[in-house]
Amino acid sequence: MQHGEIKIFAGSSGIAFAEDVCQYLGVEIGVAEAFTFSDRNTFVRIGETVRDKDVYLVQPIGMRPNDEFVEILFWIDAFKRASANTVTLILPYFSYAKGDKKDEPRVSIRARVCAESIELAGADRVVAMDLHSHQIQGFFKKPVDHLFALPVLCETITRMQLQDLVVVSPDVGFAKQAHKFADYLGTPLAIGDKTRKDHKERAEIMEIIGDVNGKTALIVDDFSISGGTLIEMAKLLKERGAKRVLACLSHLVLNEASIAKLEESPLEMIIGTDSVENPYIAQSSKIKLVSVAPLFGETIRRIHKSESVSPLFEKVPDKLVTSKIE
Amino acid sequence: MQHGEIKIFAGSSGIAFAEDVCQYLGVEIGVAEAFTFSDRNTFVRIGETVRDKDVYLVQPIGMRPNDEFVEILFWIDAFKRASANTVTLILPYFSYAKGDKKDEPRVSIRARVCAESIELAGADRVVAMDLHSHQIQGFFKKPVDHLFALPVLCETITRMQLQDLVVVSPDVGFAKQAHKFADYLGTPLAIGDKTRKDHKERAEIMEIIGDVNGKTALIVDDFSISGGTLIEMAKLLKERGAKRVLACLSHLVLNEASIAKLEESPLEMIIGTDSVENPYIAQSSKIKLVSVAPLFGETIRRIHKSESVSPLFEKVPDKLVTSKIE
Amino acid sequence: MQHGEIKIFAGSSGIAFAEDVCQYLGVEIGVAEAFTFSDRNTFVRIGETVRDKDVYLVQPIGMRPNDEFVEILFWIDAFKRASANTVTLILPYFSYAKGDKKDEPRVSIRARVCAESIELAGADRVVAMDLHSHQIQGFFKKPVDHLFALPVLCETITRMQLQDLVVVSPDVGFAKQAHKFADYLGTPLAIGDKTRKDHKERAEIMEIIGDVNGKTALIVDDFSISGGTLIEMAKLLKERGAKRVLACLSHLVLNEASIAKLEESPLEMIIGTDSVENPYIAQSSKIKLVSVAPLFGETIRRIHKSESVSPLFEKVPDKLVTSKIE
Amino acid sequence: MQHGEIKIFAGSSGIAFAEDVCQYLGVEIGVAEAFTFSDRNTFVRIGETVRDKDVYLVQPIGMRPNDEFVEILFWIDAFKRASANTVTLILPYFSYAKGDKKDEPRVSIRARVCAESIELAGADRVVAMDLHSHQIQGFFKKPVDHLFALPVLCETITRMQLQDLVVVSPDVGFAKQAHKFADYLGTPLAIGDKTRKDHKERAEIMEIIGDVNGKTALIVDDFSISGGTLIEMAKLLKERGAKRVLACLSHLVLNEASIAKLEESPLEMIIGTDSVENPYIAQSSKIKLVSVAPLFGETIRRIHKSESVSPLFEKVPDKLVTSKIE
Amino acid sequence: MQHGEIKIFAGSSGIAFAEDVCQYLGVEIGVAEAFTFSDRNTFVRIGETVRDKDVYLVQPIGMRPNDEFVEILFWIDAFKRASANTVTLILPYFSYAKGDKKDEPRVSIRARVCAESIELAGADRVVAMDLHSHQIQGFFKKPVDHLFALPVLCETITRMQLQDLVVVSPDVGFAKQAHKFADYLGTPLAIGDKTRKDHKERAEIMEIIGDVNGKTALIVDDFSISGGTLIEMAKLLKERGAKRVLACLSHLVLNEASIAKLEESPLEMIIGTDSVENPYIAQSSKIKLVSVAPLFGETIRRIHKSESVSPLFEKVPDKLVTSKIE
Amino acid sequence: MQHGEIKIFAGSSGIAFAEDVCQYLGVEIGVAEAFTFSDRNTFVRIGETVRDKDVYLVQPIGMRPNDEFVEILFWIDAFKRASANTVTLILPYFSYAKGDKKDEPRVSIRARVCAESIELAGADRVVAMDLHSHQIQGFFKKPVDHLFALPVLCETITRMQLQDLVVVSPDVGFAKQAHKFADYLGTPLAIGDKTRKDHKERAEIMEIIGDVNGKTALIVDDFSISGGTLIEMAKLLKERGAKRVLACLSHLVLNEASIAKLEESPLEMIIGTDSVENPYIAQSSKIKLVSVAPLFGETIRRIHKSESVSPLFEKVPDKLVTSKIE
Repeated sequence: MQHGEIKIFAGSSGIAFAEDVCQYLGVEIGVAEAFTFSDRNTFVRIGETVRDKDVYLVQPIGMRPNDEFVEILFWIDAFKRASANTVTLILPYFSYAKGDKKDEPRVSIRARVCAESIELAGADRVVAMDLHSHQIQGFFKKPVDHLFALPVLCETITRMQLQDLVVVSPDVGFAKQAHKFADYLGTPLAIGDKTRKDHKERAEIMEIIGDVNGKTALIVDDFSISGGTLIEMAKLLKERGAKRVLACLSHLVLNEASIAKLEESPLEMIIGTDSVENPYIAQSSKIKLVSVAPLFGETIRRIHKSESVSPLFEKVPDKLVTSKIE
Repeated sequence: MQHGEIKIFAGSSGIAFAEDVCQYLGVEIGVAEAFTFSDRNTFVRIGETVRDKDVYLVQPIGMRPNDEFVEILFWIDAFKRASANTVTLILPYFSYAKGDKKDEPRVSIRARVCAESIELAGADRVVAMDLHSHQIQGFFKKPVDHLFALPVLCETITRMQLQDLVVVSPDVGFAKQAHKFADYLGTPLAIGDKTRKDHKERAEIMEIIGDVNGKTALIVDDFSISGGTLIEMAKLLKERGAKRVLACLSHLVLNEASIAKLEESPLEMIIGTDSVENPYIAQSSKIKLVSVAPLFGETIRRIHKSESVSPLFEKVPDKLVTSKIE
Repeated sequence: MQHGEIKIFAGSSGIAFAEDVCQYLGVEIGVAEAFTFSDRNTFVRIGETVRDKDVYLVQPIGMRPNDEFVEILFWIDAFKRASANTVTLILPYFSYAKGDKKDEPRVSIRARVCAESIELAGADRVVAMDLHSHQIQGFFKKPVDHLFALPVLCETITRMQLQDLVVVSPDVGFAKQAHKFADYLGTPLAIGDKTRKDHKERAEIMEIIGDVNGKTALIVDDFSISGGTLIEMAKLLKERGAKRVLACLSHLVLNEASIAKLEESPLEMIIGTDSVENPYIAQSSKIKLVSVAPLFGETIRRIHKSESVSPLFEKVPDKLVTSKIE
Repeated sequence: MQHGEIKIFAGSSGIAFAEDVCQYLGVEIGVAEAFTFSDRNTFVRIGETVRDKDVYLVQPIGMRPNDEFVEILFWIDAFKRASANTVTLILPYFSYAKGDKKDEPRVSIRARVCAESIELAGADRVVAMDLHSHQIQGFFKKPVDHLFALPVLCETITRMQLQDLVVVSPDVGFAKQAHKFADYLGTPLAIGDKTRKDHKERAEIMEIIGDVNGKTALIVDDFSISGGTLIEMAKLLKERGAKRVLACLSHLVLNEASIAKLEESPLEMIIGTDSVENPYIAQSSKIKLVSVAPLFGETIRRIHKSESVSPLFEKVPDKLVTSKIE
Repeated sequence: MQHGEIKIFAGSSGIAFAEDVCQYLGVEIGVAEAFTFSDRNTFVRIGETVRDKDVYLVQPIGMRPNDEFVEILFWIDAFKRASANTVTLILPYFSYAKGDKKDEPRVSIRARVCAESIELAGADRVVAMDLHSHQIQGFFKKPVDHLFALPVLCETITRMQLQDLVVVSPDVGFAKQAHKFADYLGTPLAIGDKTRKDHKERAEIMEIIGDVNGKTALIVDDFSISGGTLIEMAKLLKERGAKRVLACLSHLVLNEASIAKLEESPLEMIIGTDSVENPYIAQSSKIKLVSVAPLFGETIRRIHKSESVSPLFEKVPDKLVTSKIE
Repeated sequence: MQHGEIKIFAGSSGIAFAEDVCQYLGVEIGVAEAFTFSDRNTFVRIGETVRDKDVYLVQPIGMRPNDEFVEILFWIDAFKRASANTVTLILPYFSYAKGDKKDEPRVSIRARVCAESIELAGADRVVAMDLHSHQIQGFFKKPVDHLFALPVLCETITRMQLQDLVVVSPDVGFAKQAHKFADYLGTPLAIGDKTRKDHKERAEIMEIIGDVNGKTALIVDDFSISGGTLIEMAKLLKERGAKRVLACLSHLVLNEASIAKLEESPLEMIIGTDSVENPYIAQSSKIKLVSVAPLFGETIRRIHKSESVSPLFEKVPDKLVTSKIE
């Protein structure tokens, strides 16, 4: 199959990210606009022909998840009715991915609901990053290219030349993923664990399994909303003798209040990606941004050139590691 | 087919309306709650068993349309996964109904997108009122009971004993519907019309086709957002000699700014229904609310008793006309 | 995406129209035949390979709507099973479009039923003209290119240099669309209106809202079956002082009896398009045909060349206005 | 599952048959009407509430197959949108069943197209009889109760006490089915066979495999349209010494011309069922009708009472054999 | 539409056949592997990029039908999730095709179940051969290229120059198909027939309709599992005076025990194709294999070059008849 | 909604389990049979009417996963075509649940493939236990009642009164689930961890995070196939000073070879459920079976009585803990 020229459009929450992607690819961003009317209805309009074009729509579902999700549905419908050849959703962050199971009775599996609606609207492919669980790929019927921030983050961290590093998983649920960071960085792993004495009791006590004394602790997680666990962990790590405590997050969905709390915590630095358009990040002195726009740009280039994307999953070319933390 | 007991649940924007419906039906409202987390994710949880129950979910898509729509998807998914027998969506207002066509190139047909996602989530039936066009019923594959506020509104107006009434359509697009009000009330019809001199010109001049001099003009419309057309019409009607000018709207989605402007306009009174949960209405001295909760309650009762709903379309029993305007 | 050569096929009611389209495009019509067996079963057979071809099937649903609709389903299935790359249905008239809503209880939404079956059979796109309502586009999930006869008709009328023209809508339901004719032609608008005195009465009285005295009245409508409203309007317009009365219709589905009645009416001329293959038109001295085959041909050309179709919606190049009325 | 009362409706070609079914069941036929407008559009309207009812729609696809098929789609849609609990299509004859394969390249599998559209429209179950092939049941996803006229026909024939009977299949394709008649009646089987000398030649010579000399030959087939094969067979059977020649057909779709030809043929009698509403049958002196309305009535009763239908496939209770041929 | 290079993959039961196809086409087979883990789970892994490739997966459903069918589902899912442009299933034998109807109550239509799951998994096209009935093509919604072994088999048989040949159908059900062999070979037809005296009796007596005395009888069938009917027929044919008895089968699914029995039967030779990977065939001295790999290879070539496949249905080029029986 | 009587059927691998369920419920098992023909085709036949019945089909996908899965598809199709009201699949073990993600490129998400096909075949609900991940519930669109063996297993273990117990997770991936066992039993948690020194190295070293010295270690996991990890863990635990080592598994899919190895390992006892029909278990002296048939029986009872199932997720009534280990 032959493709036409790459045509990238940005939804209202993906403009800056899409521009970085376009810059990587050396193409112009597509003309389109999304409005919110005074009755808070979302409306989208494509400003140029997309007939038979391969469209890539950049829009994370992040800080305003419902508005962003509904806007995606309208975009995809508009592109398909305007006769686009294919529509690929570039979804650097998918907030509802965390709703991936019924962990209590009579709730919705929100990630499946969103996945289904996105496919029904007409998406032909999704490119996402660090979904809350790998199984979410299976909520989609269409192909999902599931990227990982890990190589870009780890390469950036490696260049920081931190000494006596230990990777810390905030809980047993993230331990498997934290393990991969430890493997990549060649460090030991410690795991935070909350236990109850008995299944009849509610109160939980936080513990750390593994040795952190005298080390630089790097807490890793896919996202943090309130920063609560990070701060609690950081304090405990300090108590257990950690020299320095840093955190590394794939998705920075911290809101204003959370950022204020983190500023005053023992956490020295929070390293994260630009997967979410977050206006509050600029207010933080501790947050360091690592851009994954080149990673997405390169993925789009490969999709478009019918090249394999999987080599990017474990190791990335140097040119995709563009951020520098000092 | 035999039904179990009526089980009515309210989404976050349908609580007051659902309670009125429950009061009409003499039943308790179902236990359930919707949250918005600090990352603005919507989450719903049903608080009692719904296994094999016939669930009616009350939630207009009104003042926060995206939040309300997404919440509906999650509710329906939760009810179906919790093994509800059927889920009927009670949708007194459907804001995106106005996105029912491609009136310009490369836009989305938003009403179809929403309708499809609602059905995909698992809705078995929809009860709506005064959809922006009748064709929207055809965007749904599942049965839609399409109610009309007209009989309730007209009966209420009739009881007001207004003299020399003329029904006014704000434009030619609503003329057919306005015609029905005129027929019901036994009055003449006037039509607002904006014309351009030539298809090359953009400027439009508002005119009124029909005689309004010395009359009480009742502008009718399905909804108004900014109140702009209503005010413009009211002024013109006054210029054309109308003695009094009132308006009658099915859906009151007027926001704070619009209400302020209406307060200062020549419009004497705005009669509308409680189809939308609108916190700003209380700020208006001119808006008179007519409740359609009894109409929806009666519809649910009939659905549940396997009785015909269509007799309510043209004429309603007196007990459903409960509001009184003096 | 690259397309192969244009491959146009005609269903049994689209042969003449398809040949005009082929002439516009300078291509040969595809070899295929439809039979009606002696048990009145419809049978279709494609006479040449269509493997990986982009097929355009020309067939209005007009004078024999059920036969034509069923034949379309069989054609599409045959093309898809014969491995056509895409099938685009060229539907100059869609008779069941008028069944677009439940305007009385317990009826079918026939346009949706047809739309769904056409898509299920495998149509990838539909090109239609002047559908009874714009919302019908939303009954389809696949892209619909919705053309308008208005520019071609108005340009033809403009060339007739009629004096003191007033556009007349036969009822309030068509007023919005008639408005567009008036705007294009730069004329005033009058509206026919049937009113009842009271919603308890059945009898309706026809009135004309707006001034027609001494003018050339041009009644516009999307179609007329019996000609009844046209004749009634024409008489009333004459009574109200109109000098001349003409009519302009998108779709000429008038049958033999209707045409006979129109011949004896005060209507001077009926201008319409060739969207329907109507054998009775030749019997009329008053009907003047305007061809929309070039408009469809140009649309197909643009689809095939991946060019935008929307510029044709409001204004057409001169070469598409090929008919001349004297 | 509990059912409500049986509610039987007739489409325009199933009225007489439905009335016979209602008589068998002792119920009133449902109020409904189908129109053909002057533009030949089909329109259906249900005249009483069907909310939560189990609807059985009686309509063969027979002498006007396209009109009857499209009408079925509209009926089903109307019933479902009117909130029927279930819709069962009673399809005594399905004309397009014969389009069950691609026996030449680039044709449609019409039976599958029809089956899919019927299911898409909303049918929950189909009751059919003597479908052209058993595999057609597999074109439907929904349950199909596939009845056979064989026991009713054979019991009627047995009562005729014909001597020296031989069952004759008109060709090898029907031989397996003819075999079942022979088995039921306890007679030998003969088979008509058309052969070509070589696959390069076109001309075929009809032969009869098996002995028919001095016997009463009963040609069996599922349907005949032109009567051509029947007459050719009858002549050949006479030549081969058959004493008498009769025919037995499940579905009588013979048209006026065919019946005239049969009247003049050596065929003595044609026994068939009332599965198709055929106005021409009354013109024939040779056709004897066997009613399968009791068979369908009993099937509906069993479906409705949740009883097994399969016992009717091989043997029927005496009360279902109501026709008498002398 | 333009295609990329041909990319052929083999499932675990299609390796030898796929290699022959590749040899015909002059291409390398794709890198991929299927495992059976120690818990008997099937697992498949594609070993090279298939992004935007047109994939042909070769896998008969034959001797281990459930393993082979499930493996197909996993392959197709893997190819689609790996972004293959299209997936064509090359299915030389489809064992469950014989489950194509409900010939007794309360059984499954297994061929439809398999067809649906294959399509759901994502197959875009199927190429099959000698499906148990032609109607199975209609169980698929996607295009099926339905090949016939007949021309290849008959040409091979013609080259054997057998004298006084008569084609024998083992039963009336296969008579129509056997007829085509007889036509192609220019021979008479005889038919095996099992009859009961009365429908109350169970015992059946085998008879042969037609003359076989002094002839070389060629029993034809689509497949044989136990060889039982073949042996019974062969004995009866000998009794009836046949000089020689051979058999010709499309699909050789004979197992070890069946082959042993056939070795000792009066059958002189069994001619069949390599459509099934059957390890027991090598144990037989009587079975002669005719390869249909060139026929499938040529079909793939034509699909890929957008050429018509249907010319292969009735007559094949000499180069596709590669096997020689002496 | 009212249900009829409970109707339980067993697939070929669920007979013993279904009988235990029937005993719990005090009902007779349904008459049905599954065959494997000599060509290894699976065939199922229901032996009694299921018209309008609520069917529960018991069949784990366990030791012969492909045969068992395909058989399920055929059963469901047969039940639906035989007009069952609903079909609930009772799936005590779902072997392909472990294929729930793409953990390497170009593989299939097998659990989704199976889930989709099961739903397509017509399943209305699934009852499963200890699915490999919670997200698999989201691969289904239909309701899944997801049971946990934990309360039954833990109650049985509690009754064993083991001293100084420590729960051990074999790896970080299962740590979250192991945590729940530790919470229920009121014990500490230890975690096995395999680490690499660097992401360039392949070799992994097993470690245990947490203290096990002098304790009774209970390794918990959802299943084990080869027993390899269990044995390796048991040895390491012994090395680390564990006094006794036991294991507790939800699903016993151990094959003959694995059981032999376990018999010789330091593992003292393996406690597991009867979710899989495993013929090799009887050969082991160490395996102790805990029946979950009462748990499934109670679940079916509640589904059938429209009672909530979720109370069984965390704690079960004493009557469901029927096995006793001494």
